[in-house]
Amino acid sequence: MKSYENAKVLITGGLGFIGSNLARTLVAKGADVTLVDSLIPQYGGNAFNIEDIRQRVTVNVCDVRDAFAMAYLIQGKDYLFNLAGQTSHLDSMTDPQTDLDINAAAQLSILETCRKANPGIKIVFASTRQLYGRPDYLPVDEDHPVRPVDVNGINKLAGEWYHLLYNNVYGIRACALRLTNTYGPGMRVKDARQTFLGIWIRNLIEGKPLQVFGDGAQLRDFNYVDDVVEALLVAALSEMADGQVFNLGSSEIVGLKQLAQMLVEQQPGGSYQLVSFPADRKVIDIGDYYSDFNKIRQALGWEPKTPLKQGLQKSLAYYAQHHKQYWDADK
Amino acid sequence: MKSYENAKVLITGGLGFIGSNLARTLVAKGADVTLVDSLIPQYGGNAFNIEDIRQRVTVNVCDVRDAFAMAYLIQGKDYLFNLAGQTSHLDSMTDPQTDLDINAAAQLSILETCRKANPGIKIVFASTRQLYGRPDYLPVDEDHPVRPVDVNGINKLAGEWYHLLYNNVYGIRACALRLTNTYGPGMRVKDARQTFLGIWIRNLIEGKPLQVFGDGAQLRDFNYVDDVVEALLVAALSEMADGQVFNLGSSEIVGLKQLAQMLVEQQPGGSYQLVSFPADRKVIDIGDYYSDFNKIRQALGWEPKTPLKQGLQKSLAYYAQHHKQYWDADK
Repeated sequence: MKSYENAKVLITGGLGFIGSNLARTLVAKGADVTLVDSLIPQYGGNAFNIEDIRQRVTVNVCDVRDAFAMAYLIQGKDYLFNLAGQTSHLDSMTDPQTDLDINAAAQLSILETCRKANPGIKIVFASTRQLYGRPDYLPVDEDHPVRPVDVNGINKLAGEWYHLLYNNVYGIRACALRLTNTYGPGMRVKDARQTFLGIWIRNLIEGKPLQVFGDGAQLRDFNYVDDVVEALLVAALSEMADGQVFNLGSSEIVGLKQLAQMLVEQQPGGSYQLVSFPADRKVIDIGDYYSDFNKIRQALGWEPKTPLKQGLQKSLAYYAQHHKQYWDADK
Repeated sequence: MKSYENAKVLITGGLGFIGSNLARTLVAKGADVTLVDSLIPQYGGNAFNIEDIRQRVTVNVCDVRDAFAMAYLIQGKDYLFNLAGQTSHLDSMTDPQTDLDINAAAQLSILETCRKANPGIKIVFASTRQLYGRPDYLPVDEDHPVRPVDVNGINKLAGEWYHLLYNNVYGIRACALRLTNTYGPGMRVKDARQTFLGIWIRNLIEGKPLQVFGDGAQLRDFNYVDDVVEALLVAALSEMADGQVFNLGSSEIVGLKQLAQMLVEQQPGGSYQLVSFPADRKVIDIGDYYSDFNKIRQALGWEPKTPLKQGLQKSLAYYAQHHKQYWDADK
């Protein structure tokens, strides 16, 4: 991938989990990287995520809802990795308007800015498997009906479709990756707002049992963050991706109880317990889910490379070392 | 339908085309009807639409984006016919944020108000066949993938899904009707913002040729407004409708050139001409479209009753008599 050398790259959500890992790789490839992040405490941004590359990137703290700031930052960029979002399903139900403002309205505003001020930019949008809702069949491919089960899913879908529409109607090159469960160093582990794996890892390191909801039989697939970064990078460079939606996914399908078992085996004294489903989560639970990712494999040659066990080991090792940067033991 | 007697009914878009016809029927059934309309000049509201029932309804001029006004108006209502919307596909592309505010954000706000202040209300939402995009197959049933081709389609879909979500998660009873081309007395005929049939009828009455885009071979189905009103009324009363989406449609499928021919035959001196597709319309054109409406026929017993020719006659007769209330001949 020579093309990122000296490329001007903007990453929204750049201090977040995936954005910071993407930034690290892009810096290594010689790109000129600007990171936008709102640093809203409940979201994924954490300045420590980029401490090792802090002198090699430009950081601009602002919200993607700040249309004037975004218009300035979008100028002259070659690539936009559009990763910022409100990701909590529960928060989207208690404060739906904020979710709409960030995940739909701000996306539309960003695209309008690109249309008016930088139509040559290439955009990769981070979408989510959440918008398939409860699957009709498994594995879920891109032809599966979309059927969001929460406000977050509806707004993310609107945000994704604005991108495809601007590609199709205005030629603003854009594509969307529908991410499944992504994990790895840099994820939010303070609580379960970003992924339940986060709080599991915190609990494990703090010597508390992991809590598995229900019988733990629900199936999921997981991508280690390095593999997701690779997918973002190949999608941005490929003309074949323009106007397309691609699932990410993994061939390693595991039950949540099985995943908990894999984790606790890696931590002396680790344990998990099955607890009944909290009512507010049960109502938006989607049952089993795993992706068919043949489309991106065939079109862009992407497939995940990191075995789940290895990815979990790396993640645990990272948080064992750096946990003070991710949570306050007193809270 | 006894159940509307003394029922407290709120209609958003109540001075508009479908809202005003619905209001007339509800008043005749003894309902206590409140009409909300923004009267934005570019939209469908027209006070003349309800002149004959003005003393029998409550009119409240305000915008559905006015959350406090809506919260007051929703209190104590039994039924909400939620018909207000920005309907122009072209306007949604030139001013996407306004389309989002009305068709998505205001809908979410209305549903939040219902959840907090009137969870027992029943809502019927007017959705659109536009969100199927360019059909994969015909006739289009409710299982057809949704694939909006413009900003309006994306935002209308979000608005529809919020309704279904609030039904499924919170038990706020709601359903959505996906309307196809609706026509009849009360539609906007000043221009093509609401339906191309509007400007066709104006042109016909003004003695100008109708303009048919392209070769006029595109197939469409049409519902006379009385049939749509009937569908709204049965959907509101039926528990089987809760949480469901239903297509409306017609078994009379016609090409646009054929439709123009039907219209001009009813007006002495009427004529039409084929003109090439304007670029801004071509890019969001969806080709042939007609609906499969078996789902609502089987679940609610609805089917359209007004033959196209008869509906067109009634529409032409209405505007021949009342055109001064719908357009200024000098503009």
